[in-house]
Amino acid sequence: MIEAAKTLDGWYCLHDFRTINWPAWKTLNTEEQQQIIREFEETISKWEDVEANGTGSHAIYSILGQKADIMLVLLRPTMKELNEIERTFNKTRLAEFTIPTYSYVSVVELSNYMAGDSDEDPYQNPHVRSRLYPQLPKTEHVCFYPMDKRREYDANWYLLPMDERRELMRSHGLIGRSYAGKVKQMITGSVGFDDWEWGVTLFAEDVLQFKKLIYEMRFDEVSARYAEFGSFYVGNILPKEGLQQYFYHA
Amino acid sequence: MIEAAKTLDGWYCLHDFRTINWPAWKTLNTEEQQQIIREFEETISKWEDVEANGTGSHAIYSILGQKADIMLVLLRPTMKELNEIERTFNKTRLAEFTIPTYSYVSVVELSNYMAGDSDEDPYQNPHVRSRLYPQLPKTEHVCFYPMDKRREYDANWYLLPMDERRELMRSHGLIGRSYAGKVKQMITGSVGFDDWEWGVTLFAEDVLQFKKLIYEMRFDEVSARYAEFGSFYVGNILPKEGLQQYFYHA
Amino acid sequence: MIEAAKTLDGWYCLHDFRTINWPAWKTLNTEEQQQIIREFEETISKWEDVEANGTGSHAIYSILGQKADIMLVLLRPTMKELNEIERTFNKTRLAEFTIPTYSYVSVVELSNYMAGDSDEDPYQNPHVRSRLYPQLPKTEHVCFYPMDKRREYDANWYLLPMDERRELMRSHGLIGRSYAGKVKQMITGSVGFDDWEWGVTLFAEDVLQFKKLIYEMRFDEVSARYAEFGSFYVGNILPKEGLQQYFYHA
Amino acid sequence: MIEAAKTLDGWYCLHDFRTINWPAWKTLNTEEQQQIIREFEETISKWEDVEANGTGSHAIYSILGQKADIMLVLLRPTMKELNEIERTFNKTRLAEFTIPTYSYVSVVELSNYMAGDSDEDPYQNPHVRSRLYPQLPKTEHVCFYPMDKRREYDANWYLLPMDERRELMRSHGLIGRSYAGKVKQMITGSVGFDDWEWGVTLFAEDVLQFKKLIYEMRFDEVSARYAEFGSFYVGNILPKEGLQQYFYHA
Amino acid sequence: MIEAAKTLDGWYCLHDFRTINWPAWKTLNTEEQQQIIREFEETISKWEDVEANGTGSHAIYSILGQKADIMLVLLRPTMKELNEIERTFNKTRLAEFTIPTYSYVSVVELSNYMAGDSDEDPYQNPHVRSRLYPQLPKTEHVCFYPMDKRREYDANWYLLPMDERRELMRSHGLIGRSYAGKVKQMITGSVGFDDWEWGVTLFAEDVLQFKKLIYEMRFDEVSARYAEFGSFYVGNILPKEGLQQYFYHA
Repeated sequence: MIEAAKTLDGWYCLHDFRTINWPAWKTLNTEEQQQIIREFEETISKWEDVEANGTGSHAIYSILGQKADIMLVLLRPTMKELNEIERTFNKTRLAEFTIPTYSYVSVVELSNYMAGDSDEDPYQNPHVRSRLYPQLPKTEHVCFYPMDKRREYDANWYLLPMDERRELMRSHGLIGRSYAGKVKQMITGSVGFDDWEWGVTLFAEDVLQFKKLIYEMRFDEVSARYAEFGSFYVGNILPKEGLQQYFYHA
Repeated sequence: MIEAAKTLDGWYCLHDFRTINWPAWKTLNTEEQQQIIREFEETISKWEDVEANGTGSHAIYSILGQKADIMLVLLRPTMKELNEIERTFNKTRLAEFTIPTYSYVSVVELSNYMAGDSDEDPYQNPHVRSRLYPQLPKTEHVCFYPMDKRREYDANWYLLPMDERRELMRSHGLIGRSYAGKVKQMITGSVGFDDWEWGVTLFAEDVLQFKKLIYEMRFDEVSARYAEFGSFYVGNILPKEGLQQYFYHA
Repeated sequence: MIEAAKTLDGWYCLHDFRTINWPAWKTLNTEEQQQIIREFEETISKWEDVEANGTGSHAIYSILGQKADIMLVLLRPTMKELNEIERTFNKTRLAEFTIPTYSYVSVVELSNYMAGDSDEDPYQNPHVRSRLYPQLPKTEHVCFYPMDKRREYDANWYLLPMDERRELMRSHGLIGRSYAGKVKQMITGSVGFDDWEWGVTLFAEDVLQFKKLIYEMRFDEVSARYAEFGSFYVGNILPKEGLQQYFYHA
Repeated sequence: MIEAAKTLDGWYCLHDFRTINWPAWKTLNTEEQQQIIREFEETISKWEDVEANGTGSHAIYSILGQKADIMLVLLRPTMKELNEIERTFNKTRLAEFTIPTYSYVSVVELSNYMAGDSDEDPYQNPHVRSRLYPQLPKTEHVCFYPMDKRREYDANWYLLPMDERRELMRSHGLIGRSYAGKVKQMITGSVGFDDWEWGVTLFAEDVLQFKKLIYEMRFDEVSARYAEFGSFYVGNILPKEGLQQYFYHA
Repeated sequence: MIEAAKTLDGWYCLHDFRTINWPAWKTLNTEEQQQIIREFEETISKWEDVEANGTGSHAIYSILGQKADIMLVLLRPTMKELNEIERTFNKTRLAEFTIPTYSYVSVVELSNYMAGDSDEDPYQNPHVRSRLYPQLPKTEHVCFYPMDKRREYDANWYLLPMDERRELMRSHGLIGRSYAGKVKQMITGSVGFDDWEWGVTLFAEDVLQFKKLIYEMRFDEVSARYAEFGSFYVGNILPKEGLQQYFYHA
């Protein structure tokens, strides 16, 4: 019998990708555009209050290429809150000018592959708590992609003994740690919630570090043999103060 | 010659996923919106009568993420009734403001992998009947996904001897049973009816239990080696009394 | 050199799946709707004349779920006639309120796997003719799916010796024959005509028999090892006399 | 080092598939429809002049099923000419009533698998020239499909020695030759131009010969083991004189 | 432990593919069309200034077939600049008449497979700099496709020893070099940025050289065994002076 990995689970997470319907947006006059942006800024202000209260976090990025124009990342203690935020946003005027292109539903996750033995309740450990209920860094760049572990003949992650998986993950983690200070990562688990097993959200000031990190990892056995990747999204931060410039018709 | 599994089959089942066309919905005035919601509430009331009569069941959930906004699950004794319900709904005014995104056609199924030997007619057994013709629980959360058993070189479920399949399913069932009281599951068979072989609908008060159950099962040989999964949908219950709040333009 | 299977080929076949654009349909007043349905009924009457003359056949079914609302199956001696029927239908007013979702082009096919040796011209055999130029049964339910035989390493149907394929098909046919009286099947070949190698159209009064038959066959080596399946469609018969009820706005 | 196949390359080729937007087309009055058809007939007349001059060729077919309504096949000495034809057509009024559904970019190709040794310049050989710069036959039926040679473990075409590929292609060619007089084929290469490696365009008076030829070839090792196929399109010829009847609203 | 390949990375790159919405475009009168083209010409003029300053490069091609009508290739020192160019273009009037069909996000990349040993800083080497920060050639033809290296059982590029990968890439490079003067290539890396690992952009005066080069390479082990390809796009240059002719309604 294979020993299942165990997880610690934190805040629920919604990644919401949209393109802007620019032709429709441009039919609005400046006053209407400003009013709609102000409404969205007020929504963000409420999210900032939640973040200040330590009961959630969020980030907004402008995505490069045609897959999306903007990505919202939202963290909340319950899935119900995410559902309400999504619906409330869909009822805003700004949403009328966006076209949904992708979304991802998951929960912040720490696995027990790295954990040492301890009698302590990890949910009371401040270091663990800061990773399960994180404040999303407002770095210049973001990278998101979903992934699976393969279940193929000759490369079936889920049939490997726990010790082998732990050793492979340890080696994988060493590469990650060598990018400390350059790339921050948030792993969210989505088994039972969405179409891939995990979402990976990376944050960096230098966008090239995403490529260096992921390419180096690809030569590591966990990725080379066992990883299956979905679409990659990369973008630049879109701060609340930049919304007016982002949306205004030049 | 491989011994085929046998099934007991209950009510027919339609999962119907839709997104709301919010921009169109918002063009209606409050009175029109209220009238449309009332029409839908009356439809649900009729479904509640059917449920009270023990001749069917239903559930309505709000789905998280962009794959759908709402999911209707409908159980009826015949496929013709489901067909009529679908068409009747499509002719309602509310349907004009929904966009179909996915559906699943199946029938409640119990397999003979777990069954003991008996001369009894299982269709007369009250316990069996309560599972073939179930009242859908109105738990806070739902999870739905379709799945196949693999027919690959070195992992062909349908070429395994009956005894081996039964043993594998028994081990699988033990994990399921360890979640008793936390997760209720309804298995519906869809061979010949839809694109996957089974639909799995899970119900729980705590949404995290879906992830824990499915992740634990993934390390079990039946899933690890033989399962292929479709898209996962997760959501929160949307009670009839919550429709006004769900749909009203804030 | 592998011996190729030979086929007898009968009428050409078009499966045409469409959804109804209900919101657009509902903008019509009752008189317009009635007129459009009458126009379609007249088209069907012409098809009925063809069927009475033994120069073709047809069936109309209401499909369950979102993949389609209706399926037309049309059999004719030439592909040109099918092309004209398709175009004529596309020019009707009803077609304006339908959205094409899937179609399948094939020809009624009998393979020589089952055939005995004979000097007879099979195209003169009345039994063979009734299968190559069939009157489609108007059973309560229909099931359609396309399929391929695999050409994979370790499971390449087309590299098996003729004798082995014949033996596998014979065993497969035994299961089919055990459903005689419950399920009628029409096999249409589509190599060179459409994206799969065959279309399978099943007819039954009891929809559950589709599932039982196909599930039992899945444990048979031909399906378990060599079959690849496309989408499955299941539906209820839609008789000409039922069109008014089907389409009218309640 | 594997010896690469060499090719002779002739005219560039564009296959352009479109559906007709019948509901929009039907909003036009007869005079407008006639004028638009006349404009398209004039375009075709120009193409006929090119064909008469031996500087290109073309064919127009009506495709069966929902994948497309019409297919244009265009041959020209340069890709730039095809680009201009495509753009000119897109600017016609008829194009406003068509919806692009598929296209294929390739070049007429002869491989050296069959070639004997010769010092002759094949581009000066009249027989070779008639195949590189062909006049498309105006047969009653057409069949088009794209294909690849597999590069899989145990079935990697590109790692086979030249001699083995030549022998396999020779056997394949024997089947093709047995259909001489029934089916004409044009092979166009698309490595670097489109998503598959080759396009196959077949012409026949009897549409059933496509199925017989392709099915027989599927049991030949080149197809059985090494071929991967895209979508199949089949249709009836649409002569210039038939356009009025094709397009007019009955 | 497998030695990871190292890369030199230059300008960031956006490939942006769009179709023209000709029916909408044709509703404009000549004056409006001219004005919109002039606006786009002014945008290009600004890009030309950047190119003259050596702080970026660009190319515009007309793509053959239905996958796209035009492709913009843009090179800039930062991803933020590409993001702004994309958004600025989306706000132009011309963009209202284009439909996004594909895009690709990457960075100009040189790998260390070919590099000799040296103490020199390659980023200071003029030859290296000219390849990392290239002026895109304005050849008559372009070809673009994305690709991956396989990670499959028996063909896992990322588990090969560095020496073996280097030797395979060297042989591959020899083919490429034999096309010197005929085909120029730009490799852009997209690990972490887009859905494939690399984009390949080829430039040539003779479009047939793309096919010859890629087909010859396909018989080379790196491609035959380890390469996975995405969609191929091929086109003709669209110079600024050709825009009026390209867009004007004949």
